[in-house]
Amino acid sequence: MYVVKSPLSDASLQTVSEALQGALVDLVDLGLVAKQIHWNVVGPRFRSVHLQLDEVVATARTHSDTVAERAAALGVPPDGRAATVAVGSGIGVTPEGWVDDAAAVRALVDALGAVIVRMRERIAATGEPDPVSQDIFIRITADLEKHHWMFQAENG
Amino acid sequence: MYVVKSPLSDASLQTVSEALQGALVDLVDLGLVAKQIHWNVVGPRFRSVHLQLDEVVATARTHSDTVAERAAALGVPPDGRAATVAVGSGIGVTPEGWVDDAAAVRALVDALGAVIVRMRERIAATGEPDPVSQDIFIRITADLEKHHWMFQAENG
Amino acid sequence: MYVVKSPLSDASLQTVSEALQGALVDLVDLGLVAKQIHWNVVGPRFRSVHLQLDEVVATARTHSDTVAERAAALGVPPDGRAATVAVGSGIGVTPEGWVDDAAAVRALVDALGAVIVRMRERIAATGEPDPVSQDIFIRITADLEKHHWMFQAENG
Amino acid sequence: MYVVKSPLSDASLQTVSEALQGALVDLVDLGLVAKQIHWNVVGPRFRSVHLQLDEVVATARTHSDTVAERAAALGVPPDGRAATVAVGSGIGVTPEGWVDDAAAVRALVDALGAVIVRMRERIAATGEPDPVSQDIFIRITADLEKHHWMFQAENG
Amino acid sequence: MYVVKSPLSDASLQTVSEALQGALVDLVDLGLVAKQIHWNVVGPRFRSVHLQLDEVVATARTHSDTVAERAAALGVPPDGRAATVAVGSGIGVTPEGWVDDAAAVRALVDALGAVIVRMRERIAATGEPDPVSQDIFIRITADLEKHHWMFQAENG
Amino acid sequence: MYVVKSPLSDASLQTVSEALQGALVDLVDLGLVAKQIHWNVVGPRFRSVHLQLDEVVATARTHSDTVAERAAALGVPPDGRAATVAVGSGIGVTPEGWVDDAAAVRALVDALGAVIVRMRERIAATGEPDPVSQDIFIRITADLEKHHWMFQAENG
Amino acid sequence: MYVVKSPLSDASLQTVSEALQGALVDLVDLGLVAKQIHWNVVGPRFRSVHLQLDEVVATARTHSDTVAERAAALGVPPDGRAATVAVGSGIGVTPEGWVDDAAAVRALVDALGAVIVRMRERIAATGEPDPVSQDIFIRITADLEKHHWMFQAENG
Amino acid sequence: MYVVKSPLSDASLQTVSEALQGALVDLVDLGLVAKQIHWNVVGPRFRSVHLQLDEVVATARTHSDTVAERAAALGVPPDGRAATVAVGSGIGVTPEGWVDDAAAVRALVDALGAVIVRMRERIAATGEPDPVSQDIFIRITADLEKHHWMFQAENG
Amino acid sequence: MYVVKSPLSDASLQTVSEALQGALVDLVDLGLVAKQIHWNVVGPRFRSVHLQLDEVVATARTHSDTVAERAAALGVPPDGRAATVAVGSGIGVTPEGWVDDAAAVRALVDALGAVIVRMRERIAATGEPDPVSQDIFIRITADLEKHHWMFQAENG
Amino acid sequence: MYVVKSPLSDASLQTVSEALQGALVDLVDLGLVAKQIHWNVVGPRFRSVHLQLDEVVATARTHSDTVAERAAALGVPPDGRAATVAVGSGIGVTPEGWVDDAAAVRALVDALGAVIVRMRERIAATGEPDPVSQDIFIRITADLEKHHWMFQAENG
Amino acid sequence: MYVVKSPLSDASLQTVSEALQGALVDLVDLGLVAKQIHWNVVGPRFRSVHLQLDEVVATARTHSDTVAERAAALGVPPDGRAATVAVGSGIGVTPEGWVDDAAAVRALVDALGAVIVRMRERIAATGEPDPVSQDIFIRITADLEKHHWMFQAENG
Amino acid sequence: MYVVKSPLSDASLQTVSEALQGALVDLVDLGLVAKQIHWNVVGPRFRSVHLQLDEVVATARTHSDTVAERAAALGVPPDGRAATVAVGSGIGVTPEGWVDDAAAVRALVDALGAVIVRMRERIAATGEPDPVSQDIFIRITADLEKHHWMFQAENG
Repeated sequence: MYVVKSPLSDASLQTVSEALQGALVDLVDLGLVAKQIHWNVVGPRFRSVHLQLDEVVATARTHSDTVAERAAALGVPPDGRAATVAVGSGIGVTPEGWVDDAAAVRALVDALGAVIVRMRERIAATGEPDPVSQDIFIRITADLEKHHWMFQAENG
Repeated sequence: MYVVKSPLSDASLQTVSEALQGALVDLVDLGLVAKQIHWNVVGPRFRSVHLQLDEVVATARTHSDTVAERAAALGVPPDGRAATVAVGSGIGVTPEGWVDDAAAVRALVDALGAVIVRMRERIAATGEPDPVSQDIFIRITADLEKHHWMFQAENG
Repeated sequence: MYVVKSPLSDASLQTVSEALQGALVDLVDLGLVAKQIHWNVVGPRFRSVHLQLDEVVATARTHSDTVAERAAALGVPPDGRAATVAVGSGIGVTPEGWVDDAAAVRALVDALGAVIVRMRERIAATGEPDPVSQDIFIRITADLEKHHWMFQAENG
Repeated sequence: MYVVKSPLSDASLQTVSEALQGALVDLVDLGLVAKQIHWNVVGPRFRSVHLQLDEVVATARTHSDTVAERAAALGVPPDGRAATVAVGSGIGVTPEGWVDDAAAVRALVDALGAVIVRMRERIAATGEPDPVSQDIFIRITADLEKHHWMFQAENG
Repeated sequence: MYVVKSPLSDASLQTVSEALQGALVDLVDLGLVAKQIHWNVVGPRFRSVHLQLDEVVATARTHSDTVAERAAALGVPPDGRAATVAVGSGIGVTPEGWVDDAAAVRALVDALGAVIVRMRERIAATGEPDPVSQDIFIRITADLEKHHWMFQAENG
Repeated sequence: MYVVKSPLSDASLQTVSEALQGALVDLVDLGLVAKQIHWNVVGPRFRSVHLQLDEVVATARTHSDTVAERAAALGVPPDGRAATVAVGSGIGVTPEGWVDDAAAVRALVDALGAVIVRMRERIAATGEPDPVSQDIFIRITADLEKHHWMFQAENG
Repeated sequence: MYVVKSPLSDASLQTVSEALQGALVDLVDLGLVAKQIHWNVVGPRFRSVHLQLDEVVATARTHSDTVAERAAALGVPPDGRAATVAVGSGIGVTPEGWVDDAAAVRALVDALGAVIVRMRERIAATGEPDPVSQDIFIRITADLEKHHWMFQAENG
Repeated sequence: MYVVKSPLSDASLQTVSEALQGALVDLVDLGLVAKQIHWNVVGPRFRSVHLQLDEVVATARTHSDTVAERAAALGVPPDGRAATVAVGSGIGVTPEGWVDDAAAVRALVDALGAVIVRMRERIAATGEPDPVSQDIFIRITADLEKHHWMFQAENG
Repeated sequence: MYVVKSPLSDASLQTVSEALQGALVDLVDLGLVAKQIHWNVVGPRFRSVHLQLDEVVATARTHSDTVAERAAALGVPPDGRAATVAVGSGIGVTPEGWVDDAAAVRALVDALGAVIVRMRERIAATGEPDPVSQDIFIRITADLEKHHWMFQAENG
Repeated sequence: MYVVKSPLSDASLQTVSEALQGALVDLVDLGLVAKQIHWNVVGPRFRSVHLQLDEVVATARTHSDTVAERAAALGVPPDGRAATVAVGSGIGVTPEGWVDDAAAVRALVDALGAVIVRMRERIAATGEPDPVSQDIFIRITADLEKHHWMFQAENG
Repeated sequence: MYVVKSPLSDASLQTVSEALQGALVDLVDLGLVAKQIHWNVVGPRFRSVHLQLDEVVATARTHSDTVAERAAALGVPPDGRAATVAVGSGIGVTPEGWVDDAAAVRALVDALGAVIVRMRERIAATGEPDPVSQDIFIRITADLEKHHWMFQAENG
Repeated sequence: MYVVKSPLSDASLQTVSEALQGALVDLVDLGLVAKQIHWNVVGPRFRSVHLQLDEVVATARTHSDTVAERAAALGVPPDGRAATVAVGSGIGVTPEGWVDDAAAVRALVDALGAVIVRMRERIAATGEPDPVSQDIFIRITADLEKHHWMFQAENG
């Protein structure tokens, strides 16, 4: 059926599409994890952390849409289904139930840190085969590292 | 740790919290499924279906937030993590890859239909123990049935 | 041709669809009547009543759309054509020509009163077969009774 | 009671007020017909036609208000009641029930076509007695002919 | 100094520029008169008339700017100075001091009526020499006659 | 003087109007209490609690208007005067002077808790006599229980 | 506990804080009184007075926040609790129940008049000890005297 | 007829009302003069000066409304009619016809300068009898002196 | 293929469609010319002229869309392709490269002047066959002549 | 005359300015082509394609402004005149007259495809001499490839 | 060169211009200090303090513009250069590097306190020579004292 | 105390943090210099240059925030204090006092030119160690070079 002739060579496309699919899974999970803690956080910093987490959700949702549509634009169908996310995410397991605010902040520091490492690898991998995708990863990393700083500063 | 004295009796709370947790899983998955097809749909109705699906995403995201925060308000920690959604959703498996527009519309008719059946059961179950939660399910159902009509009419 | 499998039983559907169709006709007519008097009112309260009537028009237009689309969502085609409205409305005949402001206010008190009585019957009739539709009638009634008070207070 | 000394002669006023009253009836009916099909259309173009029809509704509502208030400004009470519209409209009968998208488009082509013919006659009739009213008819016709093109192009 | 070669013949320009200058004076004065009564009105309809008058002010200010800039566009310098307005306006003298609401409404009926008569003469005079200016007078007249109706209806 | 024929029987009206008047007093006082602490809170969470309290004020003001106008719509004059509120509120006395942030949060948990208990009684009491008023109490309770959760989580 | 070293001398602070606390009580009560009449007014001017009163409410709410936060800024805890307002307000008792529109306007003329007299005394008292607080009283008085004029003109 | 008991003594009122009436005339004229030059300016700085003049118009219109309503609030009917403005304004005569941009700037420097001198006298005169009116003159002067600087800098 | 039965006779349609096609070419070119100079202007008036030119671009783009869609509405396919514009425009050749501000203003005076002459011929030609199209040309001419004045005044 | 000392060496500037001028011509033409088809498309997907094309127009207009002003910023005068575009564009000839929707979609796929190939060459050419210009080409390409995907999916 | 004839005497001008220049330096520095801590704060209140500081920045930027333009309006060139600010500010040295949240709050309490003392001296000094400038200092002080309270309450 | 484990090696971090700190100082100073001239410029282009400078201020403020927060995100505390800026800026000394418009434009050309040279060195230095920071410098340079062109064109 529907086939797009990609502007990239097959080898380049393989590299770039893996990076995009990996980023998609990480970002969808980041959005779900941030919402999970947004709902379950308790403690004196409840309101502050609750609001801060929705900004992470907004970042994750915007960028997951961008990378999924970038994959489609290169002719590769993106996969952001729950089961795919559950097994493929680079973020460790979030425990269920209430979470106190300091632990919530640490959880975000860890989740963002894990995604950033992988995202920087994607920047390195895609610069040569597709600078357009690389530029998207660069901007995502800028946003994630800003959130990362803010949660680290919060527990500083 | 953190314990909320719920305004409901234990029995009522059991019923209502199961309904809310079930609705949360269904709605998070509905959002992910709608985004998945939003990215993968192809065919002459691409643009129309692509846009229509983002309205389902908006509905699913708004209402999943409402039911999760309603559970928290009753003292029950909500669970919207990817793995929980992957195993607990009432929506059948969405196949990976490109999907033509007629199949996309059918998939949404099926997904919305499955969620609506379960949501109507939640309306029936919660009216006596907690009319506040019931009212939330009633409004969610109104929105879902409107989307359901529109996708049915699309393939009518 | 196009057939929707309704979430309601046949008997329930019969009751609910009659209520929705009746409400549609009443609300479309309410919008036309309010506009008619909006254009024809004269007297010292002209501007005040003229503006107040456009708020009734806005309410009537919003809610007529809601009930028509609710009927469609249940698989029943709504009928809001001029001839159907002319014969089926619960509002008495509005005389043609200029109308002084006190009579204009009385006409609205009567029109709103007539629709409210029928709308309360619809609330009573639909609670068991379809709480989703009932909730729509409840909200419409709240809005209509607020307008009703304001016009009564105006001539108080 | 309330009498306005019109800026027009009696003969001119007779011509212009008939044109305005005719336009009012046509435009109110156009709004009702467009809403009727907005609710009842089915088929692959459902969403597209559904949205396009609400733009016709907006045009019809805006312009019906303008012509009714223009009649009032000339001292002639406008009549936009359901029964008046039901018998006086220049638009043919819209069948009840679901309508497939191609038929929906044809219905609008016909309805707009019928109103345009009468509106052009009003332009011709009112230029001499009242260029102010004529200018209103000219702008209405421009909008209706644009909608007419779009529905014709849709079925082209 | 600065000379614009007008797109109109000298005779046409003479006619059109007199019409524009006359309209400018009438509209500036209409804005001042409406403000004067806006500040001085008293009586049970104070608030309603006070607000309605500011809508006349807005109309007068918008249209006075349009006709002045139209004159400039034809190469004729407009004159909207206080002394020019004081002697050239078509509106009768507004008495100083408080004015009760019924008298305020009558004053506006009279002021608008006086300007409308002159504006209709400008429509008749300018159609042949400059349909662009005529179109501006037509739209101004439409707005003024709408205000005129509303104030007549207020005292109807 | 002014008498409204209520859509409810005398017995129903008695029940419903007591519920509405009680809710009005509770909500006006909730708004005053939340403002009082908004101004007097001190401590490390000052800014966070200060802002959160203004959201309670907004909720209380919106809903007090709704229930007062609902009473009026049923023909019963509402009473929201300071003296009535001072003696009839279900909220305990707020001490004067500065209040540290933890105590501020506890005061809101208590105030919201007290109002919620009474509001749930109103839901139970009004469902049969007037589902329209009941629906208003249901929505108010949903909002209050959401605020209640947030303040509990804050001190969790 | 929490002590602010005020920028004012003790004597100055005593004068200024009494003025601020008095203004707070007057303004909170003005807001409650205006809302009370907003809900209970009846008569031909119902809508006009009902809307005008909400503008007084907005003024009262904005300025009560300003004076309360000004007191806090000087290190004095403000007191805006219902009981404090009920006994300390400079506004006379508002009778319960429906109030016809002319009486409603008179009630506002009286309430505003009473507050203005006290506010002008505060302007005189605070100019020397704290021109910053005085400037706040000057602006509040300007707004109150504008409302006062409008209600007087309404019954003029 | 309509008499307001002013909060000021007769002597104070005399002083303050003369200041307000004088300011009203100056500000209405400033708005007319600025519009006159806005329409008639020519030269390389046409667009810049044309836009800058409309900011003076906005200032003049806003403040003329404020001082007129302040007079009304003190019980003195304001007079902003064209003839009153033509004879009472403190601004010298603006010549008719096109004006080059440097002359336009000089004209504004002069007009603003003349009004500022009189406005500073009003500040001096009203501080004792009515600090509320004085505060209005202070703010007007701040705005006028800012415009004055900008036009001087323009020709600097 | 696609054929629209035009509301105009063949002869009328011929006249009107030539006028519309000619206007389309002129307006598309006007937009390109204004952008060209917007990018290439230099000199002390750079910023002022640069901004003023974007207002011409906005006018040209809005009106070119209107005339193209008007042609389509009459059943005539519009042609706004680069090659068509390059050969058919009524505007003389714009030289390449930097252009000083005075020359830029002259170029716009010339370009607007050339288009206005042709647009006035279109007003004259279309009044009889199609007053709807004529009204569009009238409004375009009003806007172009306003721009024309402003650029003439700029170099005045 | 006007000479800018570029931050780039002569050789670098030569490369970069050719890339920018080429991109300008392609993007201006893309905007004209998209408008041409926006006006001439017919068929069942008329409305959907008509709207989608205006999003391409918006992209083309925004980016053509960016590249033209980037050229100017490097000291090179951009050339976006109709004749330059007509001969230099990388997009093939668009046939005149009505175009059915499938052909319209194919035309956009081809036009976007042609521009993308050239834009990727510009990315490759400019990275070394001017990473600032390269970054602009990267973002333009991201947008064009997203549009390209959507039109391909539409005909998928 | 450029000389403005000030509305103040030389002696008055000397006093007022020193006050304005001093306020400018203080306010520019306050904005820089608040930004410095906005970037360097760490600790559990990071987000709350980070956001609160940007509100101080907004206040400082708005008011520094006001006092600088006020100086210009009096004919005195303002000096807000970095070196001038570095030596003339009334705020003590901010240490470099990370700062924990409690210290950040204390730093703002000190900085605001230092500026407020000097600003109150400016109020005292300028009332006689220039009440217009004094009024500006009064409003700045009101805003600074409100921020001062909020930071004190934060550490209360 | 607070230590962030940077995603960069020590050597890379050294390079990148120096670039970010240098850019911060340049951009804070650019904002101060642009404001200084915004307040002190005089001459026929006063208004145009005054407004254009505030756009430079907006650019400088936005980007200084971005680079400071980027430094923080890499674990390096940024330093934007007045004394640091006064000694470290790459922009030459701005003379005090009034500045005529041509000199003002030249000053900006010089200031922007100096910052651009240093910013391009930062692009070159950071591409290898941190492409995320490099991308930020690229975008800043694009904006600065656009402003640079506009000021050069202004004096062209």
